Amino acid sequence: MTKTNSGRFFEDYKVGDVIRHAVPRTVAEGERALYHALYPARHALYSSDAFAADCGLDGSPLDDLIAFHVVFGKTVPDVSLNAVANLGYAEGRWVVPVYPGDTLRSESQVIGVKENSNGKTGVVYVRTRGFNQNDDVVLEYVRWVMVRKGNLDAPAPEAVLPDLKKVLSVEDLVVPEGLTFDDYDFGLAGEEHRWGDYEIGEVIDHVDGVTIEEAEHMIATRLWQNTAKVHFDLTFRPEGRLIYGGHVISMARALSFNGLANAQMIVGLNGGAHANPCFAGTTVKAWSEVLDKAETDVPGVGAIRLRLVATSDGSVGQLKGEDGKYLPGVLLDLDYWALMPI
Amino acid sequence: MTKTNSGRFFEDYKVGDVIRHAVPRTVAEGERALYHALYPARHALYSSDAFAADCGLDGSPLDDLIAFHVVFGKTVPDVSLNAVANLGYAEGRWVVPVYPGDTLRSESQVIGVKENSNGKTGVVYVRTRGFNQNDDVVLEYVRWVMVRKGNLDAPAPEAVLPDLKKVLSVEDLVVPEGLTFDDYDFGLAGEEHRWGDYEIGEVIDHVDGVTIEEAEHMIATRLWQNTAKVHFDLTFRPEGRLIYGGHVISMARALSFNGLANAQMIVGLNGGAHANPCFAGTTVKAWSEVLDKAETDVPGVGAIRLRLVATSDGSVGQLKGEDGKYLPGVLLDLDYWALMPI
Amino acid sequence: MTKTNSGRFFEDYKVGDVIRHAVPRTVAEGERALYHALYPARHALYSSDAFAADCGLDGSPLDDLIAFHVVFGKTVPDVSLNAVANLGYAEGRWVVPVYPGDTLRSESQVIGVKENSNGKTGVVYVRTRGFNQNDDVVLEYVRWVMVRKGNLDAPAPEAVLPDLKKVLSVEDLVVPEGLTFDDYDFGLAGEEHRWGDYEIGEVIDHVDGVTIEEAEHMIATRLWQNTAKVHFDLTFRPEGRLIYGGHVISMARALSFNGLANAQMIVGLNGGAHANPCFAGTTVKAWSEVLDKAETDVPGVGAIRLRLVATSDGSVGQLKGEDGKYLPGVLLDLDYWALMPI
Repeated sequence: MTKTNSGRFFEDYKVGDVIRHAVPRTVAEGERALYHALYPARHALYSSDAFAADCGLDGSPLDDLIAFHVVFGKTVPDVSLNAVANLGYAEGRWVVPVYPGDTLRSESQVIGVKENSNGKTGVVYVRTRGFNQNDDVVLEYVRWVMVRKGNLDAPAPEAVLPDLKKVLSVEDLVVPEGLTFDDYDFGLAGEEHRWGDYEIGEVIDHVDGVTIEEAEHMIATRLWQNTAKVHFDLTFRPEGRLIYGGHVISMARALSFNGLANAQMIVGLNGGAHANPCFAGTTVKAWSEVLDKAETDVPGVGAIRLRLVATSDGSVGQLKGEDGKYLPGVLLDLDYWALMPI
Repeated sequence: MTKTNSGRFFEDYKVGDVIRHAVPRTVAEGERALYHALYPARHALYSSDAFAADCGLDGSPLDDLIAFHVVFGKTVPDVSLNAVANLGYAEGRWVVPVYPGDTLRSESQVIGVKENSNGKTGVVYVRTRGFNQNDDVVLEYVRWVMVRKGNLDAPAPEAVLPDLKKVLSVEDLVVPEGLTFDDYDFGLAGEEHRWGDYEIGEVIDHVDGVTIEEAEHMIATRLWQNTAKVHFDLTFRPEGRLIYGGHVISMARALSFNGLANAQMIVGLNGGAHANPCFAGTTVKAWSEVLDKAETDVPGVGAIRLRLVATSDGSVGQLKGEDGKYLPGVLLDLDYWALMPI
Repeated sequence: MTKTNSGRFFEDYKVGDVIRHAVPRTVAEGERALYHALYPARHALYSSDAFAADCGLDGSPLDDLIAFHVVFGKTVPDVSLNAVANLGYAEGRWVVPVYPGDTLRSESQVIGVKENSNGKTGVVYVRTRGFNQNDDVVLEYVRWVMVRKGNLDAPAPEAVLPDLKKVLSVEDLVVPEGLTFDDYDFGLAGEEHRWGDYEIGEVIDHVDGVTIEEAEHMIATRLWQNTAKVHFDLTFRPEGRLIYGGHVISMARALSFNGLANAQMIVGLNGGAHANPCFAGTTVKAWSEVLDKAETDVPGVGAIRLRLVATSDGSVGQLKGEDGKYLPGVLLDLDYWALMPI
């Protein structure tokens, strides 16, 4: 009887299956401190209990991306251990903020499968939900990955492709209960620019950069209990450990403070692509483009839809070449909604 | 008057002496988070307050090896500053779990001395106890080290060799008060294998590996306030900083989740050898052998005796060569008892 | 409308201006654990809640240098983003200890300006104060930096040079409320040497050393939300990332435990120079010189004035060459007051 987990293969996923992921995790002040140690995170709502209380919350929540990484990390042994590629995200929603002391667990429902024409791999779509200790959904998102078949003779399943929103509408977004920007202190937040100051189409160069070290991305990725071998084991991939895509997301988001200090809370994830792999030694920089703006039903709380791009070459404003493919200097193209004082 | 500690030499240890080690330490959520950041630790009882509460505990204790490392670290300035080699461990017992907010301190009693025939070094045996703020013993273990003589003319002391158990019996082990596996959730724990599923002699390849970085082992070793120069100072040992043996123990134990996810709590340490030195750049993998099984006096709680082997070459199941010496790819050979749902 | 902060230039500072720095920060057990992971910090008052309670405090405060780094870090975007050099410190005082859960913010008042004769740069003097959530001043210090002019045609301001104390007197120092060393446990603290055992002029070699890694100094510097590009971005400074001077201060102070274990609390900063730049790969060692001693108005609590020198070459007792310049092996020359049991 083999005791170790060899992961699921494409033929092991059936539409409708719910996978309950293992190893719940209590997150607390230690995770908050480490997040600030690993990323240049400065959004005030996640840095200061006092600032968050002034915004109507019960102290400072853990960064929205801590919640995302912890929930995501739990899915790796069940969803992406035999994955060839992480293809996309959609319909990501942050529903309830995560506070120090909360315990998170994850579940994923298989919502689509499609075997590739080569007969060796297929695409699996899952909707993952993260829950806290009260069984409240704290966030959910759809993710699709290309997975190897374990048995090449397994018959191709009937293709099921989920109908996914290209973009969440502002009605889909959840403004955390009690949130108010009525007493928002722009001076303490770090910038004067409010929702009304951003124009659709505007491109913001976030200027700062961080050269990534092996120890840092491994410390981060382990903290989320992400077990994918490629991030840790140099013998598995001698050309270099592949950096967890979520590390690049967090790095870019933190860098985006410089120009988007008031884009406080991430509430929606419309889509995202890890355009090129990232390795240690890369200097990650970031730029953003304002894709849309909308008012929420909470007075004073605006939603801003942003494209967040991480680069390895410091380029700004360039995304794809004439062939429609991402340029080699683009690491990440993320489409998300954030909340900002109007 | 010299102000710095030059450490004790062999002739400074007298059988019966009790050394009270300095610098008590409060450990809390920060240490827990760092442990998860430094090692791929996933045992659910140490990851989730809710899971631990379902097992009858007052929330999730700090990892048993955090307790060990903190207690051990305090002994270094008094026991191993002039040590040539760490020779062995015996009779290690975890008595009371350590919770966030506890303050730990250590004491060691000298229980044996034996000068080596070369007249330059000797072996010192100490029994170390760690205490919490209530003066409860949280763990204890025997360790013996080879220490240099400071004064080569000091007479050899009468040799005293302690009578140490080769293996703790199940009666020696302490099952934490209140522990129950009656409502144990194997799905959340990550594996279905229970005590009854393991056979004596069974070998488990834990599959995963981590390539160690300098920053990581130093961060870990400092966190335990271990002051041994060889771990930090490259000028002291230009061929490379020697990685603290406890870092390899924690790494291997964390990797052993994959196949031993339900070996939740470490309660006994029968012995251990740091078979070969470990340096940054090494990819640590691990395998385990089931050495014994026993039922505790708590219904549903089984004890499993495991050999945990860390390797630098990915080998599995091989320990010693024909000459009886550890193979060069073996880093650690640890013999311990863990608790598992029956 | 540009959204990113390009920093202030020399001509932007007016004597009397008060700059309210952004991004308040709640510090807690996570920051404490990380401090111990990044520096070999062992002073018992900051390591153990029980030890600190025995000294009359409400549990263990966060290290005085955590408070300093957090307060300092907030000033970087407003004070030193366009700085050419960090020239000096004076009149630093720790007023109220910082405890886990406190939220810190900073303000700086411009107290001096002087344009340099080259017309391209000038020196700016600021007095920075850190506040907690109750608006108590937790610490304050004066710092002066050389800053580039943004507009070379801007007229030189009237030179204002603040009148700064060369050395704080013991009356300037604040002994934290309730502090007592009446029940001080020298055994647990780690050394027997008390205030009376140190002589003015005495030099102490702290013996231990740490070879610094890139990941470590970046993790530390980010933790304090220090945003200076030179510490993080290798493309900005291809010859190597410059290590934040405060990282060297904390490293040297932690190493000084060995010989100054009872110099528990830092209460005054008389001056300091980052004598030479520090890069990863450097093995930092430290030595101290006793510059002065004084009794405070709290019985049993002595003040000791120390010169703390960090080196890159392991030299001890040598500071400047015949030309009056710091020797190349000197990284830091810090002049501070600490409290010690009499």
